[in-house]
Amino acid sequence: MDKLFIIKIGGNIVDNNALLHHFLQQFAAIPQKKILVHGGGKLATRVAESMNIPQQMVDGRRITDAETLKVVTMVYAGYINKNIVAQLQALHCNAVGICGADANIITAHKRTNVETDYGYVGDIDAINTHQLQSFFLSNLSPVVAPLTHDKTGQLLNTNADTIAQELAKALSSEYQTELIYCFEKPGVLLDVENPETLIASLNYKSYQKLKNSQQIFAGMLPKLENAFSAISAGIHSVIIGNGTALTQLTTGKAGTRIIYE
Amino acid sequence: MDKLFIIKIGGNIVDNNALLHHFLQQFAAIPQKKILVHGGGKLATRVAESMNIPQQMVDGRRITDAETLKVVTMVYAGYINKNIVAQLQALHCNAVGICGADANIITAHKRTNVETDYGYVGDIDAINTHQLQSFFLSNLSPVVAPLTHDKTGQLLNTNADTIAQELAKALSSEYQTELIYCFEKPGVLLDVENPETLIASLNYKSYQKLKNSQQIFAGMLPKLENAFSAISAGIHSVIIGNGTALTQLTTGKAGTRIIYE
Repeated sequence: MDKLFIIKIGGNIVDNNALLHHFLQQFAAIPQKKILVHGGGKLATRVAESMNIPQQMVDGRRITDAETLKVVTMVYAGYINKNIVAQLQALHCNAVGICGADANIITAHKRTNVETDYGYVGDIDAINTHQLQSFFLSNLSPVVAPLTHDKTGQLLNTNADTIAQELAKALSSEYQTELIYCFEKPGVLLDVENPETLIASLNYKSYQKLKNSQQIFAGMLPKLENAFSAISAGIHSVIIGNGTALTQLTTGKAGTRIIYE
Repeated sequence: MDKLFIIKIGGNIVDNNALLHHFLQQFAAIPQKKILVHGGGKLATRVAESMNIPQQMVDGRRITDAETLKVVTMVYAGYINKNIVAQLQALHCNAVGICGADANIITAHKRTNVETDYGYVGDIDAINTHQLQSFFLSNLSPVVAPLTHDKTGQLLNTNADTIAQELAKALSSEYQTELIYCFEKPGVLLDVENPETLIASLNYKSYQKLKNSQQIFAGMLPKLENAFSAISAGIHSVIIGNGTALTQLTTGKAGTRIIYE
C-alpha cells in the first residue's frame, strides 16, 4: 500500500504568513501522496466585520447564516485556498485547490435536529475516493477548503478537523493513511506549559488512565477522542503536533502518535 | 476529433441569479466536453466598497492593487466559482472549480512596460493542456475563475475573455474547439437596438467592409478583433451571442458565428 499523508492546519498557521510559508515548504517536500486540509482562521471574522456582517457565536462556534456562508466561501475557498495553492506551485508542488463541491469530492447534509441551529453547517455523508485517486494519478496534491455541498446546490460550512478525518477514513482502504493534526503545541503534554512533558505515543488504555486522573488538558480531549475514533476506523496512525515541525511529524521525530493499542 | 465547447460568461449573467441558473441548466445539458470561464461582475466592486477598499479605474479597467487582488480572489475564485460549481453538481454536471494556479493550469507574468500600471494583472504565458485533458478523462467540466499565477507564488488578475481565448487556442490541436462569448445581445447586430438585424455569420472580409462603413457598433470591435485572431490561431469557430440562449448557441441556431472566410 502506498503511503498517504492527510494534514490539517488551522488558524495558528493560516493567519501567520511566515509560519504558513515555512509549513508549505515542508509540505511541498513530502515525497509521498498528500492532502492538505486548511481551516479558516481570523480572516473570515475580519472580512465579516469590515462588511458589517454580525458574527454570532454559540459555545465558541460560529453560526453560519446566509451572509456568513458567503464570507467563509470567499475567504476559505477563495483567498486562503488560492494563496496556498499559488505558494505550493512556486515550491514545485502541483497543488489543486478544491472545496467539497468540486468534482463532487465531499457530499454532506445540513445539520438539523440539534438544540442550536448552526445555520449552513454540513455533516459529511460521502467522500469521492475514486476522484481523489484520479488526482493522485495526475500527481496532484489536493488542498481542501472546509466547505461541502448537499447535491442540491447548497454549499455548507464544515469543520476542517472532521473533513480531514473523513478523508482519512475513506482513503484508508486504498492507502496507508497517516492523519496529522497540526496545532500550536508540540503534541499531547502532561504539563501543558512544559514541552518537555510530551507524550510521544499514546494508546487508548493509557489515554483513559491519563484522562481519569485528569492529567490531560481538557482542551485536548475532543481532539483525542476524534483521533481514537479515527484509528478504530482503520486509519494507520494519527499524529498530533506543531505544524512548524511538519517534516519531523511525518518522519516520526516529533508530535504525539496515537496508536490503537 | 472530439468537440469541445469553451464558454465565457460575464457580469450580466453572473450578477443575476435567475439568469445564471437558467444558463447553468443549459451548460449542464451540453453532452460534449466543456469548460466554463466566468468573469466577476459587480460583486467584487460591492465587496471592495463594503470593505472600504477604494477602486481605481483607468479607461474603464480596474487597477488591481494588493487589496483589490485579495477581493477579486475572494469573490471570483471563492464566492462565484464555488456557487457555480455547487449548482452544476445539483444539475448532475461534474464541475471542478479552478483558477489558473490550480494544477498549474495557466501561468502568466505581471504586465509591465505599459503607460498605465494596472497592478497585479497577468498576461498569459502557457496553458497546461495535458492536465485539462486529464480532467476530461475523469469526466470533469472545469469552471475557471479569471486568475492566473506567475510560478513564484503570485496570483494575477486576468481578463476572462483572454483566458477563454487562450484555453481555446491551446486546446484546438486536440479538440474541435468552439469558443462561445456570451453577452447581453443576441450577437453582432447591424442596428444595435434591433435584434432582427442579427448577422448570423461573419467572415473577415465582410467584417472589414462593415467596420469601414461604420455599420458595427464600436463596442463590438475589440470582441470581433479577438474573435478573428482566435480563428486564425486554429479555433474551429467563435460564436458571439446571448447566454440565455446557450443551447441555441451551441447548436448553431442563434448568435453570430465568426468564420475564417
